Amino acid sequence: MRVVTGYRPTGRLHIGHLFGNVGSMLDLQATHECFFFVADWHALTTDYESPSKIAENAKDVVLDWIAAGVDPFRATIYKQSDIPEVAELALVLSMITPLSWLERNPTYKEQQRELAGRELGTHGFLGYPVLQCADIAIVGGELVPVGEDQLPHLELTREILRRFNRLYGPVFAEPQAMLTDARRVPGPDGRKMSVSYDNVIWLDDPHDRIDEVVHSAITDPAKVRKGDPGDPEICNVYHWWRFFFPDESLRVANTCRDGSLGCVEDKRAFADRLAEHLAGFRERRADLGVKHGMAEEVLAAGRAKMRPIVEETLVRVREAMGLPETRRASP
Amino acid sequence: MRVVTGYRPTGRLHIGHLFGNVGSMLDLQATHECFFFVADWHALTTDYESPSKIAENAKDVVLDWIAAGVDPFRATIYKQSDIPEVAELALVLSMITPLSWLERNPTYKEQQRELAGRELGTHGFLGYPVLQCADIAIVGGELVPVGEDQLPHLELTREILRRFNRLYGPVFAEPQAMLTDARRVPGPDGRKMSVSYDNVIWLDDPHDRIDEVVHSAITDPAKVRKGDPGDPEICNVYHWWRFFFPDESLRVANTCRDGSLGCVEDKRAFADRLAEHLAGFRERRADLGVKHGMAEEVLAAGRAKMRPIVEETLVRVREAMGLPETRRASP
Repeated sequence: MRVVTGYRPTGRLHIGHLFGNVGSMLDLQATHECFFFVADWHALTTDYESPSKIAENAKDVVLDWIAAGVDPFRATIYKQSDIPEVAELALVLSMITPLSWLERNPTYKEQQRELAGRELGTHGFLGYPVLQCADIAIVGGELVPVGEDQLPHLELTREILRRFNRLYGPVFAEPQAMLTDARRVPGPDGRKMSVSYDNVIWLDDPHDRIDEVVHSAITDPAKVRKGDPGDPEICNVYHWWRFFFPDESLRVANTCRDGSLGCVEDKRAFADRLAEHLAGFRERRADLGVKHGMAEEVLAAGRAKMRPIVEETLVRVREAMGLPETRRASP
Repeated sequence: MRVVTGYRPTGRLHIGHLFGNVGSMLDLQATHECFFFVADWHALTTDYESPSKIAENAKDVVLDWIAAGVDPFRATIYKQSDIPEVAELALVLSMITPLSWLERNPTYKEQQRELAGRELGTHGFLGYPVLQCADIAIVGGELVPVGEDQLPHLELTREILRRFNRLYGPVFAEPQAMLTDARRVPGPDGRKMSVSYDNVIWLDDPHDRIDEVVHSAITDPAKVRKGDPGDPEICNVYHWWRFFFPDESLRVANTCRDGSLGCVEDKRAFADRLAEHLAGFRERRADLGVKHGMAEEVLAAGRAKMRPIVEETLVRVREAMGLPETRRASP
């Protein structure tokens, strides 16, 4: 089964990605034909005012993936904007996608609320799920690892492709969702860790930056000093323990509750433990970073692997619709 | 100056096109570098349920143009869907186009009202002006012949390109409108003659079909029989006289008013006169129709002429945005 998943290069990878995104990529590449892409056009939906960062991030993400264990010899790694057929397919699909399907999309509403300060009511932003549908359909994606919050988008993809098949004949498989770890790693502020919220710990953050972010985390406000009993359920540091080092989290919870663990001490311990945990990644990532042109090599190879696949898809789409490319009649 | 204009192949050409569309193409090709395209993706916005007709019409329109006098050795004639870069540019532009600009577009509102029976509230239909903007910008269009009803679309194009230039640097010229004959040729029902309203006389209609449509035209309802005085201002046949044979229209108006011209007689005279007027076109068109592969040859040549132009545009767009194509680093 073909697996497709993309990442919007609005930033590099952070520790939240070790669960949903990167975690499932590593699992799936061992057993499936995988297409992993850097969704730079998608990044434009929110970051159109500063696109040059997107290009930088795109290369960083490729190196992050590889440092995290993604294997470019197993999976096809490519950049969305290197495949113009994605835009072509998105355009065609947008013609059969009712606005009402897009407007009722709950993640659209949520993102608009969350990013209210920025001018995001664009045609491209509303069309995000159509582009996502094209991303999946262009490679004939059958399995899409998604977090729970992305399920409505995938359902939209299925609806759009179903409509295409009904109008023009059976061209596309309806992709299935593969639910990834649905839990959201919180940021220090308690919101979902997300580049958009500027509350992330990058995978290659040095120890001192990890310290800094961990020490800014909101803990139980009723626990003022060591000795006070705390409620770990409302402590972001405790949630991190549970995500990253579940074996150690029971001890943390108990000593928080009985007051014997102070918050500062807890934060220092967690920061040290996380920095140690990420040391291997940081080293591999640094090695990759000094290899000039490494990301470009990987993306160029992926682009070449994509060519025959996307061309075949577009031929089938055009044939089904009865809109063939211009060809000179044979003499 | 580069001139761009497109035609949606929801049908072949009809007599209404002799004024706005084709009339200005003939004028402009003599003096300007012209790009004339068959807008098959645009046709999908309203005709996505039956796209195979679009492909047939696209070829017919090319032959109609040539029969009407468009010179494929002067102008570049191409099909929109043969140029994937148009879709790519439209996607990028959609990211910077506020929904509010599209929603306030008066032709959007009007079309939705007029075509209310069909499911037209799609993302692609709303994005029509963005795609149109890409059509113009992809060839660096500087002059766009438009009817008055299309002015809001061109203003939107200018706004979108201005926004692009402001965000990313001066890449695009703001195209100027060249107002074509703004009068709308009515159909026999008095609405604008339009393929969407199924009220047209095709340029290559045979005499008997011209008779049929002309005889169905609504005239002054108060003029029941010859002898009754009529009001030519509310007679669609009189409006046709004014459009096509203005020299003869005064005589028609006077004899209508004084009752000496009966409606049936008037219709027969107009139908005969129009059929005679279109005879040359019909003959040339029939000749072209029997040349196998003629339309494809013209479109293939246009496509080839377009390649370097659109590639240059996309390179400039990507450079301005800082989103370059993946290139392998030089060793």
